[in-house]
Amino acid sequence: MTAPAARLPSPPVAEDERIDWLRLLRSRRVGVVTFMRLLGEHGSARAALNALPAVARAAGVQDYAPCPEGVALKEYRAGLAKGARLLLRGEPDYPQLLALLSDAPPVLWALGDTTLLSRPMVALVGARSASSLGLRMTRALADGLGQAGLVVVSGLARGIDTAAHKAALPNGTVAVMAGGVDHIYPPENEALAQEIAAKGLRLSEHPIGLEPQARHFPARNRIVSGLCHGVVVVEAAERSGSLITARNAADQGREVLAVPGHPMDPRAAGCNLLLREGATLVRSPEDVLEALAPSLARMALDGLAEGPVPPRAAPVQRSRPSGTTRFADPVADLPPADLRARILERLGPSPLAEDQLIRDLGEGAAALAPALTDLELEGRIIRQPGGLLALAA
Amino acid sequence: MTAPAARLPSPPVAEDERIDWLRLLRSRRVGVVTFMRLLGEHGSARAALNALPAVARAAGVQDYAPCPEGVALKEYRAGLAKGARLLLRGEPDYPQLLALLSDAPPVLWALGDTTLLSRPMVALVGARSASSLGLRMTRALADGLGQAGLVVVSGLARGIDTAAHKAALPNGTVAVMAGGVDHIYPPENEALAQEIAAKGLRLSEHPIGLEPQARHFPARNRIVSGLCHGVVVVEAAERSGSLITARNAADQGREVLAVPGHPMDPRAAGCNLLLREGATLVRSPEDVLEALAPSLARMALDGLAEGPVPPRAAPVQRSRPSGTTRFADPVADLPPADLRARILERLGPSPLAEDQLIRDLGEGAAALAPALTDLELEGRIIRQPGGLLALAA
Repeated sequence: MTAPAARLPSPPVAEDERIDWLRLLRSRRVGVVTFMRLLGEHGSARAALNALPAVARAAGVQDYAPCPEGVALKEYRAGLAKGARLLLRGEPDYPQLLALLSDAPPVLWALGDTTLLSRPMVALVGARSASSLGLRMTRALADGLGQAGLVVVSGLARGIDTAAHKAALPNGTVAVMAGGVDHIYPPENEALAQEIAAKGLRLSEHPIGLEPQARHFPARNRIVSGLCHGVVVVEAAERSGSLITARNAADQGREVLAVPGHPMDPRAAGCNLLLREGATLVRSPEDVLEALAPSLARMALDGLAEGPVPPRAAPVQRSRPSGTTRFADPVADLPPADLRARILERLGPSPLAEDQLIRDLGEGAAALAPALTDLELEGRIIRQPGGLLALAA
Repeated sequence: MTAPAARLPSPPVAEDERIDWLRLLRSRRVGVVTFMRLLGEHGSARAALNALPAVARAAGVQDYAPCPEGVALKEYRAGLAKGARLLLRGEPDYPQLLALLSDAPPVLWALGDTTLLSRPMVALVGARSASSLGLRMTRALADGLGQAGLVVVSGLARGIDTAAHKAALPNGTVAVMAGGVDHIYPPENEALAQEIAAKGLRLSEHPIGLEPQARHFPARNRIVSGLCHGVVVVEAAERSGSLITARNAADQGREVLAVPGHPMDPRAAGCNLLLREGATLVRSPEDVLEALAPSLARMALDGLAEGPVPPRAAPVQRSRPSGTTRFADPVADLPPADLRARILERLGPSPLAEDQLIRDLGEGAAALAPALTDLELEGRIIRQPGGLLALAA
């Protein structure tokens, strides 16, 4: 798995350039994948911002304006005022397993102890309406894994997430927020969230103050698993966000683990389904450590240039060969119209994996990438976490 | 997997020859594997009985006498008096998946509806001290699998076994007894055992009246799994007979399935361990049917000449090439002394798999087989279920 960040210009240290990153990222129709491509092709966020209107015009979008500088500046200042740090992808403090994802967030707001991000992490996730057995199991796992040196990552939700953070606090825990790093949900976790900011870390890819919408939760979950060597689902119903997180984790090449339960207990249905699909059965912290050992060992031996484990699906190669400057002369380099039509024909409202699309169309990833970027900028298609594409509504 | 029975003379129809089978089988130091070899080499049980004393003498055992004819006759008459049928390996009524085992019982006493033995079977086994959830699950599985056309096999023990037989009675159930087919244990299952004899089937490889000893239970369990396409463990502690049954089933090439439970419930520990070792996770009768489908399909397509699934370890080829008559001239054909010594050196009180021994010694199975038979007849080594060998105490 090639980390696209490795071929990108180093993230800027200067404040105005960091604000340019925010500005480009917050521009309409610029998703995280497009952001990284634009950055790579133009060499800097400022250059990409300058080129954007022309690119949009060439793709038939009139009156395209990037995010105003004031909006980005406001986000930047609000973050610093809250005591948060802005981590850019490619910086040493940016969590390195997360950086391996093709849809890694270009920026992260971090509130708390950012040194936790350099330690190996494991996610504990599960149902909000957890059983007492499930909560006990979560505490046993979070405590045992924390004592073994792992940082426990979760989503600050009710139930399993809350139990995981609480039990892991003494040894290190990271809460990935669906909204802004300062937006606490559910409200009863206000005190826990404060403790996490004091002793652990709160993390978000969104601006300070953002109130999360439904679509932000799956996007958040890709960060939860992306930070980690593995995801342990402690208790989950058959159709649940935890299951989606687990399947995304598998697509990211991360270990998927699940705690079994009796088939007559509906709260075990999701976990049992994952186990039937090949997840590792977890009875104890030791089972988790055993399953993560190869990934942890690879990290120790190889450093982090390579992913922790090979992903199930080959990631799409999104960067173009160096030397090409497609966006500098957008009209000349426009992808052929029939390719665009074939992409649109192939996609529907239900998301499709990008690598499946590539196989379906029989085109190389490099040929497809520019067309996909244009269609995303035009608002015709939408990128979703996990390398999924769908037609815009 | 070659069924040794296929190369053996057809089982006798005449009563006196059937009694000879019993006599040879009940003779001291003649285990089920040795029985089949002697039969194959001498052409009939009577000829083998005649040769036995000379074989024993040649192996250094003086005063060897086969089982007296009166003892075998008594067993035979007692069985018929109880209304049981004697099924000989190789007969059409003898259960055909069981006949594929290298240590299949040469004879079975059957009390009840022997037509059940021609239908596909599945074993449901588990703890005697089952939870109410475990018992409910057992009833749901036994009922569902029975309605789908499978005969449910179990061991008439308390707990899971009892629940399985009861729920499966309307659709067909087989109880494999550890002692004689008439020896009911536990006593509270007397009424259920009568119902099984009336509507289902009781089965045993032992003489009528035999009270089971500890060593009879694992031997019985090889028949439970040997009859079946797969074994479902519903609830079992970490060290339990059900686990041994499941592992033997895997060695027999049968499917192993387990119902998961919460790791904090000790009654789930055995099942969860099996699942970690690769057993199929069972939530419903449908999960069992799906897992057994390939084996059932193979049975439907190929008939039963081949095993339902390839066994994990290649079975030992125990029959000698036709035309050799080793036992007719025992002294001339005695295996080399150093091979015997090497076998004895290799074995200990803990059982070793016969195919492991073959690999360790670097000898062909055909070369080793006569030496093993002699050592077994001499009482120096003991055969155990699952192709295991150990030094006699």
